Amino acid sequence: MTILEVGPRDGLQNEPIPIPTEVKVEFIRGLVESGLREIEATSFVSPKWVPQMGDASDLWPQLPSGAQFSALVPNLKGLESALQVGCDRIALFTAASDAFTLKNINKTVLESIEVFREVMAAFRAQAPGGFVRAYVSTAFECPYAGRIDPEQVMVVVERILELGVDEISIGDTIGAASTNEVHALTKVLLEEVSLDQLAYHFHDTRGGAIANVAAALEHGVHRFDASAAGLGGCPYAPGAGGNLATEDLVYFLERNGVATGIDLAKLAQASRPVLQHLGRGPISKVQIWELAREKR
Amino acid sequence: MTILEVGPRDGLQNEPIPIPTEVKVEFIRGLVESGLREIEATSFVSPKWVPQMGDASDLWPQLPSGAQFSALVPNLKGLESALQVGCDRIALFTAASDAFTLKNINKTVLESIEVFREVMAAFRAQAPGGFVRAYVSTAFECPYAGRIDPEQVMVVVERILELGVDEISIGDTIGAASTNEVHALTKVLLEEVSLDQLAYHFHDTRGGAIANVAAALEHGVHRFDASAAGLGGCPYAPGAGGNLATEDLVYFLERNGVATGIDLAKLAQASRPVLQHLGRGPISKVQIWELAREKR
Repeated sequence: MTILEVGPRDGLQNEPIPIPTEVKVEFIRGLVESGLREIEATSFVSPKWVPQMGDASDLWPQLPSGAQFSALVPNLKGLESALQVGCDRIALFTAASDAFTLKNINKTVLESIEVFREVMAAFRAQAPGGFVRAYVSTAFECPYAGRIDPEQVMVVVERILELGVDEISIGDTIGAASTNEVHALTKVLLEEVSLDQLAYHFHDTRGGAIANVAAALEHGVHRFDASAAGLGGCPYAPGAGGNLATEDLVYFLERNGVATGIDLAKLAQASRPVLQHLGRGPISKVQIWELAREKR
Repeated sequence: MTILEVGPRDGLQNEPIPIPTEVKVEFIRGLVESGLREIEATSFVSPKWVPQMGDASDLWPQLPSGAQFSALVPNLKGLESALQVGCDRIALFTAASDAFTLKNINKTVLESIEVFREVMAAFRAQAPGGFVRAYVSTAFECPYAGRIDPEQVMVVVERILELGVDEISIGDTIGAASTNEVHALTKVLLEEVSLDQLAYHFHDTRGGAIANVAAALEHGVHRFDASAAGLGGCPYAPGAGGNLATEDLVYFLERNGVATGIDLAKLAQASRPVLQHLGRGPISKVQIWELAREKR
């Protein structure tokens, strides 16, 4: 079982309050100490678009040892910056609906996959042995186009597989999916994608993320994205759920007898510097409960 | 599929701020208008122990039509009060661990079942055709005694069944259980309890309630307790999860293609008078998300 921690990138990228690089480094060090071994640390994206990630090139050399770090790379320019600091694990972004990619990156899905092709060719040439993950967002529902059929997801997945990506992360970006949809999509996905290549990225917007993890587990899925303290995902309201909280995922898996290698108490500590800087509490139910216990 | 709304009783009983009877009536009217058909409205318990439920005899005659209402009854004195106002659906309370019942009602589990026997005999004699539900709390884990085996739950369930209760509500009182435990206990329970007699009462303390509902659904369980807006369950900290929120359960079921007959928008409105009175927001993820959307 592998948990892919996305808090430092996906969890922070939409935060309007600038977080100093040293706070991010402390956060990431805590994540590694808790036992997390795959962490998406930052994004090599234009600071004009995502100011919070503007320190990627400064941050990268300060990353601790003990885990594999990756970075989101939106284009060739981002790749160049990533390679310059020695990043050999990159993540690329697309979605299952044109409406979503057009709104987010001003490209259709197919156009975004053309960028994949370009970036991957350059990456493979310059970082042989490197690792490429591909995000397929809105795989269940798009906030603009509505429900997405598994067949529509597969069109995107097949094109990405052809390019030779190492991993595909299937996202329930707005946290709308229910377990039946997870069963249906997983069955279709596993006809073409191996279990070692597949990760799920669930959001807990409506409280169903753990149920969706449980559904995917039934098919043997063993890679899940999560964000420490539930950071990120819904910038509109404090307390509103977005990314599945890593703590909630770890609690669920361990309680179900699935070893994660992660120390829950250390994990809860890891995000404290960031939460203190943002002046807010965690969104993780497990963390909120533990904090409530401490107060008694 | 039946959702048994416990907000007016379980959701409010530990609230230290007194809620006027008229606010409770408005709340319950809203619940009925949303489509809920089984509602635990109050508890005929000594106001010395649970001041918030001290208005049970005043509240009962003001209940609207359109749903079946029940009340928690701790003993013969409570039953007398309940019968006086015409209550013909009662709920009795016990748990799977002596440590829990001793702490809560100063009786061992077996002693509490002796109270069941007394109360049920009087109830059946005076309210033929009435309905009796029995709560079995701490069915997965007790905060004082730790993990509970399915066999230990069955000892209690068998004794209660012998008394002829109409329904048993199995509670994950501290929201600790994971799906494997739900599968294991449900298999054992269904050897003796029929699906029409079985309800689950999950708490979302650690974010796993919907996953546990999904696990129980796989066995055909079709009765679930829930509390509007996630009211109640954890009096220690605002935002900490307790009772599974009815909204989150309705969203999950409907999205999975299971009809509930409940209007989610009306349901979200129903708890507003209570939340306003308490000066706080909902704990339901679905409701928090919808409120965040309204603010945008």
